[in-house]
Amino acid sequence: MAAAAGVELRLLGECLSPYCIRVKQALAVKGVAGYEYVEEDLEHKSELLLSSNPVHGKVPVLIHRGAPVCESLVIVQYVDEAWAGPAILPSDPYERSRARFWAAYIDDKFFPSWEPFFKSKTAEDRAETFKNAIPAVETLEKALTECSSSEGKPFFGGDSIGYVDVALGGYLAWIKAVDEVAGTSLFDEAKFPRLAAWAERFAAADAVRDASPAVEDIVVFYKKMQAAETGAEH
Amino acid sequence: MAAAAGVELRLLGECLSPYCIRVKQALAVKGVAGYEYVEEDLEHKSELLLSSNPVHGKVPVLIHRGAPVCESLVIVQYVDEAWAGPAILPSDPYERSRARFWAAYIDDKFFPSWEPFFKSKTAEDRAETFKNAIPAVETLEKALTECSSSEGKPFFGGDSIGYVDVALGGYLAWIKAVDEVAGTSLFDEAKFPRLAAWAERFAAADAVRDASPAVEDIVVFYKKMQAAETGAEH
Repeated sequence: MAAAAGVELRLLGECLSPYCIRVKQALAVKGVAGYEYVEEDLEHKSELLLSSNPVHGKVPVLIHRGAPVCESLVIVQYVDEAWAGPAILPSDPYERSRARFWAAYIDDKFFPSWEPFFKSKTAEDRAETFKNAIPAVETLEKALTECSSSEGKPFFGGDSIGYVDVALGGYLAWIKAVDEVAGTSLFDEAKFPRLAAWAERFAAADAVRDASPAVEDIVVFYKKMQAAETGAEH
Repeated sequence: MAAAAGVELRLLGECLSPYCIRVKQALAVKGVAGYEYVEEDLEHKSELLLSSNPVHGKVPVLIHRGAPVCESLVIVQYVDEAWAGPAILPSDPYERSRARFWAAYIDDKFFPSWEPFFKSKTAEDRAETFKNAIPAVETLEKALTECSSSEGKPFFGGDSIGYVDVALGGYLAWIKAVDEVAGTSLFDEAKFPRLAAWAERFAAADAVRDASPAVEDIVVFYKKMQAAETGAEH
């Protein structure tokens, strides 16, 4: 892929990557439009990707006036700081620290606890790994109260989508797709009413709808992945 | 441990934890003094620690006017934002993103690559794990140029100690102690002249000297740990 010189803003991504989805959602919340999106083939990474992120060689990379920003949560904070528009992080230092704490929790604890599920091969495996993810979901259910400025706010960020919302929101289409294929309900309405309501609101929010992939696309991808791993169609 | 009510600022820590050292260094850089330091016994965690950090139950926790901040890099950013004084993170959004990128690299790649070394039991183990840490050290050696605003600046943060400096600085006494006991040289002067010079400057810097533990204390602790693991004095 040839790099177009002088492009103001370019995002190197992979359309189903939760980390890329998260960055697209942050750009949408911030109202940053008109950037060039470049879909990477991760089996054959572009020269631009490898030279922009020589340390990890991973997407997403946001290239702003030729300067690359790597790592999705770092990118989201950069987007918040470099552009005017609705704030993604709260302005109060303590609220900011809580948002950073929960975003780190989502990447370091929640996702690793759930990720093995969609690689599980047997019903027993799936049941076991699903069970292992529940404590982190319980913690997030509690966090949803703690993070909102007050009870009853629609998002982790309060009245609007913020840092923790896009941190978790990047995974949402994946969670829904896996639930659909496996017949599970990770953010179960009866057990986790706040998270279930959050997931509905987030998916329906104008600000991020166009930045999120169709669940059906992930269902197709997930079924193919399962078939490849088990050697049989699911 | 009884919690003294109404304390303005309190740090729950463990004196040899790299993450606690890092927070003490950040407070020192920022010129925040007069806080109450509470040493935790991690075998018997205090009620205050468990109630302040119910999610992880880990040190460090900074409690500011009764509100707990957890996770060392989150705390360092909070300290930078909540107090006036010398800036820890750069003011430019792009430079901030680079600082966050490298701090994450230090915790996610550098430390995990080196950590197994000080748990290695045999000379062969040690040689193998030491070798495995070298690529991350090479990357940090390059980062030291990239992070400073320009070549020839003394710290990752430029002219003064910044975010990446305390991120790496928290591990420094451990690196020196392990080098001393094992006869290694992780930030070898011949191979990594910038990192070696940085380590000397950081250890000698007035701003953080009192916030860093004596290498000799860690040597004693490390030898005891080795003896306990191998069942013989080193």
